[in-house]
Amino acid sequence: VRVGAYSIGVDLGGTNLRVAAATESGEILQKISVPTVLTGGPARVIDDMVDAIRALREEVASSDLRGIGVAVPGFVDVKAGVMVVCVNLPGFEGFPIRDEVQRRLGIPILLENDGNAAALGEKWIGAGKDVQDLALLTLGTGIGGGIIGDGKVQRGFLGMAGEIGHMTIYPDGNPCGCGNFGCLEKHASASAITAMANMMGIEARKLDSQELHTLALAGNEKAQMVFDAVGRALGIAIANLANLLNYPLFLLSGGPLAAWDQFAPSMFAEVNKRSFVFRDSRARIEKAILGSNAGLLGAAYLPFSEQAAAPVKTMAGRGL
Amino acid sequence: VRVGAYSIGVDLGGTNLRVAAATESGEILQKISVPTVLTGGPARVIDDMVDAIRALREEVASSDLRGIGVAVPGFVDVKAGVMVVCVNLPGFEGFPIRDEVQRRLGIPILLENDGNAAALGEKWIGAGKDVQDLALLTLGTGIGGGIIGDGKVQRGFLGMAGEIGHMTIYPDGNPCGCGNFGCLEKHASASAITAMANMMGIEARKLDSQELHTLALAGNEKAQMVFDAVGRALGIAIANLANLLNYPLFLLSGGPLAAWDQFAPSMFAEVNKRSFVFRDSRARIEKAILGSNAGLLGAAYLPFSEQAAAPVKTMAGRGL
Repeated sequence: VRVGAYSIGVDLGGTNLRVAAATESGEILQKISVPTVLTGGPARVIDDMVDAIRALREEVASSDLRGIGVAVPGFVDVKAGVMVVCVNLPGFEGFPIRDEVQRRLGIPILLENDGNAAALGEKWIGAGKDVQDLALLTLGTGIGGGIIGDGKVQRGFLGMAGEIGHMTIYPDGNPCGCGNFGCLEKHASASAITAMANMMGIEARKLDSQELHTLALAGNEKAQMVFDAVGRALGIAIANLANLLNYPLFLLSGGPLAAWDQFAPSMFAEVNKRSFVFRDSRARIEKAILGSNAGLLGAAYLPFSEQAAAPVKTMAGRGL
Repeated sequence: VRVGAYSIGVDLGGTNLRVAAATESGEILQKISVPTVLTGGPARVIDDMVDAIRALREEVASSDLRGIGVAVPGFVDVKAGVMVVCVNLPGFEGFPIRDEVQRRLGIPILLENDGNAAALGEKWIGAGKDVQDLALLTLGTGIGGGIIGDGKVQRGFLGMAGEIGHMTIYPDGNPCGCGNFGCLEKHASASAITAMANMMGIEARKLDSQELHTLALAGNEKAQMVFDAVGRALGIAIANLANLLNYPLFLLSGGPLAAWDQFAPSMFAEVNKRSFVFRDSRARIEKAILGSNAGLLGAAYLPFSEQAAAPVKTMAGRGL
């Protein structure tokens, strides 16, 4: 099909490198997914990314490419176009991703943290398209996500904002690798669900949230207790977000969402008890709808966004 | 003195109605304070406010009045120019403060919540004048404050953002009138300090934070324990703020600040343990410097601010 303006989004993950072309209204034109080959370091990954983008461009019948957004798994210094912290991709910290890809393709590149990109994707054409403010919590190995305020990614002054997974919800709760105790992600992530199921001595083929959901539906009280704990933890965290931000919408995504019916009752009970702002403003908690494409789509939105046009805030005085 | 452009700030409190004229650089030209007379309802308060503003204008040798900012003790619908929730001033909920004052004076009026105005004042000419992002926590009867992001008040979608005092820090902590347990303000406000001193059976002429500070300095271990608890509570809350917002600066104000040396050690220990974002971004916690003038000055800043020029976000679809 012939199209008008389009953009390209890239989701650089530790396992897969995905690239998609999208129209200004969020229609995906083409998609490519290749494995992320980490053995050759950043140079090889950038080679593969550039190749995939070129292949995609050839398949799109438009010369009006507005820009390329790249979602990356780390904290981003947007001004410098680099990840300042990146745990999962060896060698990428400080590597000039933006300038390198830009140099090879001659097209403006915008970097964004993958959790922020996912939140932006949901805001663009997902569950948040009718609001200007939302927070997304993605329940996975940890809890990632992002905060969108007034339609824009809230990055903080060094790109580290939105670490919702490390909110302290139980000051003496489970220990976390970040040095804290009682981080939300140690009480409500997919991994935490499995760990709690283990603690409960639940016997199942696989202790993931799907299997536990099946058990809970069948009346297994231990599995129900695990989801009850997950809902309470999420409720405390979302109550805090509501009191601080007064946003109209909080979105959840990730595997455990399939068990919504099991954890939602305790989650809503908790958030309604703990946040008069949530109650009085009739805020909502809903399922995100873009699934694992959220980050890819958010990346594709970047060239179309208001923030792409705005001057980048400097990080002056931080010596970074 | 003859001056150029100036603005007028009003701080409408439950006890005093204060009005100040300020230059664009934050110099206070004149100040008036009168008691807030609540017996005549909003009409009488508006009369007094208009009189005070007129009196002040006569004393300022400039005809270039840019506008009037009014800080009010309640949640503000900025678009409608009314308080949607106001606990301390009977009859003010829904009263058209902005339009009424504007009609009488013929000058643009901007309303703002007093906690937000205080944070804005500190950003303008206080402890936060060198940053774009900060959160202020004022330790008083409760814990008020506000959040300034990218130089602008973060209001949320119904003007209820910044309720830092109601962040859950201990899920099973002290009960709060808002319906929650373990709100920050039940563990770290001036009132909470007095309550904890009472629980400890501390004997003193007056159980306020000043008196307790004196006792703690003299080696009273019970008083030291109270401040230790206050510091830990503040540390948990600020760690959460840092992880969510990645702001460079968190400010504290209020009477208990005099006891900084007593609560700061446990506060910093806690925030450093609980927030890698705080640690890694070398964020700061400091004393606010404008004291009880912060709200008045923030109100005076409103007519000069970027937000004054920007179109007001609608609250469409909320039926308010």
